[in-house]
Amino acid sequence: MQPDAQLRELFTPESIAVVGASRSPLKLGHLILSNLISAGYRGTIFPVNPAGGEILGLTAYPSTADLPRPPDLGIIVLPREKVLEAMRDLADAKVDAICVITAGFRETGRDGFELEMEMADLARRRDITLLGPNTLGLFNTAINLNASIAQTMPARGSISFFSQSGALCSAILDWAEGESIGFSKFVSLGNKAGVSEADVIEALGDDPDTKVIIGYLESVDDGRRFLTRARAVTEKKPVIMIKAGTTPAGARATSSHTGSLAGSVEAGLAAFKQAGIIRVESLETLFDLARAFAEQPLPQGPNLTVVTNSGGPGILAADACEAAGLNLARPSQQTLDRLTRALPPFAAIYNPIDIIGDAKAERYRATLEAVAEDETSHAILVLLTPTASAEITETAQAIIDVSKTCDKPIFASFMGEERIGPGRDMLLAAGIPCYAYPEPAITAIAAMLAHYRWKNRPYPVEVCFRRDKGRAERTIDAALAAGMTELPFGDAMDIAASYELPVPETRLVRTSDQAVRAAKKMGYPVALKIESPHLTSRGEVDGVALDLHTPREVRDAWLDITTRAQRKRPDIYIAGCLVQTMGPVKAREVVVRFTQDPQFGPLISFCLAGPSAEILGDVSYRLAPLALHDVQDIVREIKSFPLLRGVRGEEPVNLAAIEDILLSMSQMATDFPEIREAVLNPILVDAEGAFVADLRVTVGPI
Amino acid sequence: MQPDAQLRELFTPESIAVVGASRSPLKLGHLILSNLISAGYRGTIFPVNPAGGEILGLTAYPSTADLPRPPDLGIIVLPREKVLEAMRDLADAKVDAICVITAGFRETGRDGFELEMEMADLARRRDITLLGPNTLGLFNTAINLNASIAQTMPARGSISFFSQSGALCSAILDWAEGESIGFSKFVSLGNKAGVSEADVIEALGDDPDTKVIIGYLESVDDGRRFLTRARAVTEKKPVIMIKAGTTPAGARATSSHTGSLAGSVEAGLAAFKQAGIIRVESLETLFDLARAFAEQPLPQGPNLTVVTNSGGPGILAADACEAAGLNLARPSQQTLDRLTRALPPFAAIYNPIDIIGDAKAERYRATLEAVAEDETSHAILVLLTPTASAEITETAQAIIDVSKTCDKPIFASFMGEERIGPGRDMLLAAGIPCYAYPEPAITAIAAMLAHYRWKNRPYPVEVCFRRDKGRAERTIDAALAAGMTELPFGDAMDIAASYELPVPETRLVRTSDQAVRAAKKMGYPVALKIESPHLTSRGEVDGVALDLHTPREVRDAWLDITTRAQRKRPDIYIAGCLVQTMGPVKAREVVVRFTQDPQFGPLISFCLAGPSAEILGDVSYRLAPLALHDVQDIVREIKSFPLLRGVRGEEPVNLAAIEDILLSMSQMATDFPEIREAVLNPILVDAEGAFVADLRVTVGPI
Repeated sequence: MQPDAQLRELFTPESIAVVGASRSPLKLGHLILSNLISAGYRGTIFPVNPAGGEILGLTAYPSTADLPRPPDLGIIVLPREKVLEAMRDLADAKVDAICVITAGFRETGRDGFELEMEMADLARRRDITLLGPNTLGLFNTAINLNASIAQTMPARGSISFFSQSGALCSAILDWAEGESIGFSKFVSLGNKAGVSEADVIEALGDDPDTKVIIGYLESVDDGRRFLTRARAVTEKKPVIMIKAGTTPAGARATSSHTGSLAGSVEAGLAAFKQAGIIRVESLETLFDLARAFAEQPLPQGPNLTVVTNSGGPGILAADACEAAGLNLARPSQQTLDRLTRALPPFAAIYNPIDIIGDAKAERYRATLEAVAEDETSHAILVLLTPTASAEITETAQAIIDVSKTCDKPIFASFMGEERIGPGRDMLLAAGIPCYAYPEPAITAIAAMLAHYRWKNRPYPVEVCFRRDKGRAERTIDAALAAGMTELPFGDAMDIAASYELPVPETRLVRTSDQAVRAAKKMGYPVALKIESPHLTSRGEVDGVALDLHTPREVRDAWLDITTRAQRKRPDIYIAGCLVQTMGPVKAREVVVRFTQDPQFGPLISFCLAGPSAEILGDVSYRLAPLALHDVQDIVREIKSFPLLRGVRGEEPVNLAAIEDILLSMSQMATDFPEIREAVLNPILVDAEGAFVADLRVTVGPI
Repeated sequence: MQPDAQLRELFTPESIAVVGASRSPLKLGHLILSNLISAGYRGTIFPVNPAGGEILGLTAYPSTADLPRPPDLGIIVLPREKVLEAMRDLADAKVDAICVITAGFRETGRDGFELEMEMADLARRRDITLLGPNTLGLFNTAINLNASIAQTMPARGSISFFSQSGALCSAILDWAEGESIGFSKFVSLGNKAGVSEADVIEALGDDPDTKVIIGYLESVDDGRRFLTRARAVTEKKPVIMIKAGTTPAGARATSSHTGSLAGSVEAGLAAFKQAGIIRVESLETLFDLARAFAEQPLPQGPNLTVVTNSGGPGILAADACEAAGLNLARPSQQTLDRLTRALPPFAAIYNPIDIIGDAKAERYRATLEAVAEDETSHAILVLLTPTASAEITETAQAIIDVSKTCDKPIFASFMGEERIGPGRDMLLAAGIPCYAYPEPAITAIAAMLAHYRWKNRPYPVEVCFRRDKGRAERTIDAALAAGMTELPFGDAMDIAASYELPVPETRLVRTSDQAVRAAKKMGYPVALKIESPHLTSRGEVDGVALDLHTPREVRDAWLDITTRAQRKRPDIYIAGCLVQTMGPVKAREVVVRFTQDPQFGPLISFCLAGPSAEILGDVSYRLAPLALHDVQDIVREIKSFPLLRGVRGEEPVNLAAIEDILLSMSQMATDFPEIREAVLNPILVDAEGAFVADLRVTVGPI
């Protein structure tokens, strides 16, 4: 069967066969059985072992064929060479799902890869949902199901987790136990021969027990599918993920670990962004955010109030706040009045509100009550240092009490470890995230605000541009038929014109006389550019003359360009020169480009022209198709954007003209996967409009 | 007396008077006395209390005058209004040092500020080392001295800490207790009326019990002094600091907290860098680094070996490694051979070395032994996830054993919390830093490498340039005498010429005839620029014409420029125009600038010309005087540096020419604090040399 959208066959099986169940406590086939039993699973467990008899108090069956009825889920814990046969037997026994714990497949080389392909194929043919191989297994705390070889079963909670690394799961479970945080579901993806991250994310999205999804991925298998599923899920609940292998060293380590080639890092990051996934860089942040999202409501705006008994940490919080793009709330006059009455004269009533080192719990309480009612504030962070006067547990209680009557998110940072411990534990037990430092609390608040804004973003406006798709198709087909990769300039221009891009008027001319006549028709000034199918760059022969104002200049330029080209590259055929109308003179220059990413499809990029954008990495990316807000974002996301808006009294450029070009390019990239790459460089843009001064189009069979 | 360079009078007093000692357990005057006693201080303690009698088993004296002999250190814990008198009494009793715990001075407004000034003045006049006011006090674990109101006294260790925030001290002590980390000395700086951060850093630098110095500062009082002292200390030991208030929001919070105006953020960051201080952004990193530096040797190079039982964390470590500028070591052939023999076939013997999930302690041991002997590796990071097979404490023991025979730094990340706990505790007790995640370990290794490189940097080459200081001085004095701030262009040029900067030949001319004659003498092409004492920018009246090639062009330009200026600004006096030789035509443009920072003195900056450097924040800073390596660094530090080195086959510009200009400007800035700001913008630079095309000099009385 096709995997159920909620993967019910994996998460809520009514009976489970453990193929490879073992009596020897040293074997995984023993561990998984004992885990199943000790977690308190209420369904039926069928150990399968050729020796039959009894294992851990359960009747063992010599073979799958001997089972009294078909199990919903089969778990395989056998040596690699026996796995395929066991799968066939389980298929014959009509299981819905199989989980293969055994490792040693794709990750070990060619033989393993082929074996894994056979398993995937079998599962597909027999309509079986396949998890793994090389998986740690899975959990579902709602039904006390620990179908894994991890030794700890977490408490029930609202966080669900999927991971491409099995060992990482064990680290996370150990962490969860130490931090007394609960989980709903847990899936170790393993080699993803069957169930993929896209399936899991969809299932967890539909799972009413899951409030927050966290995930660890090394590679994405079907990028477009993942993107679509994830975007649907993030409308409903936060998805927080760490993507490993985002640096060259990490990517090398990934491909040696998973045997899969890493796709483009930029495409992956764009996909996460466009799917509304909260991407984090470290495991620590992953956990910090998981707890925050699970336990607190989202802030409805950027204004944070910091209450502290110590100036220093207040300043550090203010620094972190600014760096994270949050504001310090300005307390309302009413709040200021209340604080003035409640606090001693040397307290700072402006935010950060410093209630000073001798503050006891009641001063915290009075301050928090005032702040909780202040509508200018969207979130509260309470800092406590263990001063001599600090009443740690009483302050924790005050925070808990106020949080019960307050609809804003409340976070705490009790700084220290030993003395503050009891207060921290009280807060955590009451669902108030409490961190050892102010910075992670602020990181969490900023991420929650981003998610709030994502959920409340305007409905995307899809724009469809007029285009002559047939005309472009004929040009591309002809080029492909001729075995070309880089299109001749004229053809590239033709495709651009089919998408109504603002390209210059262009004519191919064979003589200087023709050039002068063409220039007269188009109107001066014009540009003259060498045209040869054998040149990849005109710069190679210095083959461009710009801003020609008179017939004389055109003739001189013709002579210059053609003789230079012949001298420098006597081997090439020169088709003639292109005469082109010139774009605006005092324009700023930008670049729009797309490529086809093997995992995620068309990837559009935008930057300023010139080498510095690349050197400084000031390029923005989005996956096509782009909606209106995407093109607005992509233009504004580059750090150099102020140069387009105009600095020092300059006029802003026509941003709408750039946005139109981006939308057309998105359409082109989506229409024609055959176009491997298209680069408009430079696009001249001024206050009036935009003008594609040069472009390059590369095609290839899909 | 002047503070002893080691602050012995504070850190190792033989007797202490506590003025304001109290019988009431609720008072700080009781707390500090009981802290002194319970820490086990062996010197003499004199409680001073008007009521006399006995406090906590010690004889109390009614007044300082009644003390049997002069105490070395006096601690004051009295209401604010009695502090000054108590200081006078202690001075009469001939104390060497006074520590004022009492708060309510500078930080509370004008009255408090003036009182504090009186206290500082008294201390200076009577040769007393003054710590505070508004300090938490200090510790010295070597002599069991807890002269503070913090309730916890840390274990002995090799880390010393100074902090401008008292409450932060209590957080740190609490943290240290929880993490069982030891300290040597501990100073709460308070309001710094006497002892400053520069004094403390020097004292800790000389302290043989201190191996690592960590500090928290909100403001720096005498920047130059701090810089000099700190630089001397970092030659000997690491200084790790967090500077709060580095964002606008943080700076506002700082000035409201300390009552001191924050200096320029850039100058502060440059000072830290030039003093070799390791600056961190968060408290967490401060502690992580403190432990690493205290317990492990410095890596002697950038190559890190990662040993892991799980691929995922290995990839995360590789990512973090790349991001931190470290390399993954390439194991030597000998190591690869050893690993091949020692590890199962599916292990990854290349770095990260993945010894896979079923690894027990012995596999870790064999791998670590091989890696420890490999000279291509400079540091080792051991990752462990609590898999079913993991032997956690045994693995910790293997790491400890190998570390004893290995001169490389070794770090661990045992991932999780509950199950890995015992292993982590063993490692920490044995002096092996163990983090919950790989990332902080890598941050620590990178910081230690930076410190190693700092200590082993080449001896700075000081360069003194030829200059005509007298000529520059006359020009500046004349300008100041005339009450000018912005110098006329001619004067600015004159100063530049005194420092032998490569300025264009320039003449002020009054008529177009003169302009043509001047151009003839200089040689074409020339530039023509409007000159008026009333214009701050020539752009305002479009008053510049460049690249004039003929007498006709010069005449036309003269007419254009002067009539336009008269039309646009009829109110100004036009002195004429400047005729200038032109710089190279195909040059790249850079900017060199200096300002005088109130805290740190002359601050030099370097960037590319144009608005984008500013928008992208791609500017590098150094404090003058600059040594040769400083100017090399400042030029190479901007992200756009590749544009100067040449991209896409361009020739590199003459970097030495830029460096000479920077050195001359450093000299000028140091020679003349009266020059408030000097900006060379743009400097045209090509493969041949550099040319200062325009400059602006602002002066003001010191």
